[in-house]
Amino acid sequence: MAIVDTGAFLRDLNELRQIGKFKTGVHRPTYSPQDMESRRWLMAKLAECGLDASMDGIGNVFGRHRGTGPHILSGSHIESQNEAGWLDGALGVVGALALARVGLPVDVCAFADEEGHFSIGFPGSRSIVGDLSDAEMDGAKDRTTGTPMREALAKAGLAGVPRMALEEGRYKGFFEMHIEQGTQLERAGLRLGVVTGIVAIWQFRIVIEGQQDHAGGTTMAERRDAGLAAVRLLAAVDAAFPLLCGERTVWTTGRITLDPNAPSIIPGRAEVLFQFRDIEMDVLERLQGALKRLVQESNRRERCVARIEALRLDTPALCDPAMIAALEGAAQALAPGAWVKMPSGAGHDAQIIAQKLPVVMLFVPSIGGISHHWAEDTKEDDLALGVSVLGEAAQRFLAG
Amino acid sequence: MAIVDTGAFLRDLNELRQIGKFKTGVHRPTYSPQDMESRRWLMAKLAECGLDASMDGIGNVFGRHRGTGPHILSGSHIESQNEAGWLDGALGVVGALALARVGLPVDVCAFADEEGHFSIGFPGSRSIVGDLSDAEMDGAKDRTTGTPMREALAKAGLAGVPRMALEEGRYKGFFEMHIEQGTQLERAGLRLGVVTGIVAIWQFRIVIEGQQDHAGGTTMAERRDAGLAAVRLLAAVDAAFPLLCGERTVWTTGRITLDPNAPSIIPGRAEVLFQFRDIEMDVLERLQGALKRLVQESNRRERCVARIEALRLDTPALCDPAMIAALEGAAQALAPGAWVKMPSGAGHDAQIIAQKLPVVMLFVPSIGGISHHWAEDTKEDDLALGVSVLGEAAQRFLAG
Repeated sequence: MAIVDTGAFLRDLNELRQIGKFKTGVHRPTYSPQDMESRRWLMAKLAECGLDASMDGIGNVFGRHRGTGPHILSGSHIESQNEAGWLDGALGVVGALALARVGLPVDVCAFADEEGHFSIGFPGSRSIVGDLSDAEMDGAKDRTTGTPMREALAKAGLAGVPRMALEEGRYKGFFEMHIEQGTQLERAGLRLGVVTGIVAIWQFRIVIEGQQDHAGGTTMAERRDAGLAAVRLLAAVDAAFPLLCGERTVWTTGRITLDPNAPSIIPGRAEVLFQFRDIEMDVLERLQGALKRLVQESNRRERCVARIEALRLDTPALCDPAMIAALEGAAQALAPGAWVKMPSGAGHDAQIIAQKLPVVMLFVPSIGGISHHWAEDTKEDDLALGVSVLGEAAQRFLAG
Repeated sequence: MAIVDTGAFLRDLNELRQIGKFKTGVHRPTYSPQDMESRRWLMAKLAECGLDASMDGIGNVFGRHRGTGPHILSGSHIESQNEAGWLDGALGVVGALALARVGLPVDVCAFADEEGHFSIGFPGSRSIVGDLSDAEMDGAKDRTTGTPMREALAKAGLAGVPRMALEEGRYKGFFEMHIEQGTQLERAGLRLGVVTGIVAIWQFRIVIEGQQDHAGGTTMAERRDAGLAAVRLLAAVDAAFPLLCGERTVWTTGRITLDPNAPSIIPGRAEVLFQFRDIEMDVLERLQGALKRLVQESNRRERCVARIEALRLDTPALCDPAMIAALEGAAQALAPGAWVKMPSGAGHDAQIIAQKLPVVMLFVPSIGGISHHWAEDTKEDDLALGVSVLGEAAQRFLAG
């Protein structure tokens, strides 16, 4: 069995870290000069490892193995959040490269804009599975600068370049290695997470309309306080969800916006962004039902009117049992007792690729759980163990 | 008994309305050219009514009655909120002018910046009662433009002009007529409110510190969600306050700020501006005690740390019983059954003057409760009734 060259892997990772370096992290927003430099760097590395390297019209970098199959696909993304970490995305790309370097039958992909700099989610992986229209690209804009995606692509030299599609029947499955971006492994003293699935995010906007009034001149009986109605609704949701959720469900009120949000004015309007995540469809549906009933109950009790709107109802992406088993076997062989099965609470390209292929993910610990920040890091030993387990698992799966 | 000339009163009001006219309202920010024009207009009117008119170093316009006492003081403010109503403040000033016009022994005052364009509260009335230091003025800035108050005063021609103080022993009391700025009179079909006191505002900042984390990667058990702790605390406050409040207490959460306020990030910090208002000190103190205990309880239950800081603990200003009785008698004589005793939920110069003199206020209805908006208005009949009752009450009180 081929053994991954962890020294070359770490050298590649550290070389990539120099491109767009920011403090101990990197700044490589999608299609920026730094990002394009990293894509060209990857193409050269892929060629060095004997793959046919190309970049398509959405910026996906692809390395095609020249030999016979069965093949696996592996990779992640190479752009970063702004002034963020060196491993998020890069780890999965360079990990896949390490498999190619030792001759495994792997195609390597760096999917464009997993980090969502542009206003449409997962354009790179969605494009390669045939789930991204030209019209959607025409409407996409950079969330920070407002630059149209078409303009950014043209500036990056990608105008008119065709977009590639996955070759049907070529792959047995897709492996993505990634940092955990949480503290579950670290807190439990574990070194690897075998991902059972990628949770779906169900995101809602709740708008509550009341009546803006003077906080001195309006008696309690007269008020229609939208902020208070929001507070009571959110407290009720948090009381109900623990009775209805799954073992690993999470729910979050990330944003509350009161209007006008002034000390002496009764809020006339409140807007809440609330989401929950789970890996099981029936849990997601049960919680959505409860949320709708709680809004209905709010409208029975309160003198404000609450409306709920679903912004996003993803489908959970379950990982492939045979791929999970391959990772479990490899993890147990190289790090006995130091791994755990866990869902991914964050979104990843693997959930998109799951539309076409069996997928699995492997997590390595994030020091202090830090991610989307330049201080993001992982112990070198954990990185090396991760890529070794990835290589071992890929071979077990291909042989299975 | 002298009868107020309601025709002249309405003409004066409408003349003043032309200065800084904005739609059906006015725009006269403190010390603006429009505001200074209104102050000079008032001085001319005061002189026309036989008073000695002056303007002092903070912009207070004063009209001194030349005859013997006992005297009353009456007035309000003449500047407006930005693009706001024509009656807020102006009504009380022109009402006082109407009393002077028929020869009543009244000194008329327009206190500067009751509307708080500058960063210190009630500078005009505080100055005249000796509660405003030069140092405080030195530090005051326009909240909108940042212009130092000293610079604005110099531009208005008031640099180096001395500030006046109320003459000790001269006044029996202070009357302020004002629009209600609420809907209590209108909803009850009443035409006059005899103000029993001006509530105190007790304003608090509650800061809750948790831990900012990824909404996907962080399990419910690991979280320290500052937004959720704020929601639960505010729901508990709203459940407790009805059991502890007074008959007319009001409490308001005007502002909630989550940090970073993003859909997929667990809030690491929440800041809440919470206030309550009442006319009775023991109610205020009881509620403050409860609020502190609820924060303490939050810190026992939650994994976030809440701190509370009092931003403002005003003293309620009770109106003078003899002055209230004079207004009640006048209201019952001129509008039997069409008046009510009520507290003022908003702050007014009268609460500052109450440090030195017995005070009372008279409210007339606000159409639709609208105020601090150019659409603010009151029926002409109600304005005329208000000033007639003011004149009648002043004479009853002087004779009492």
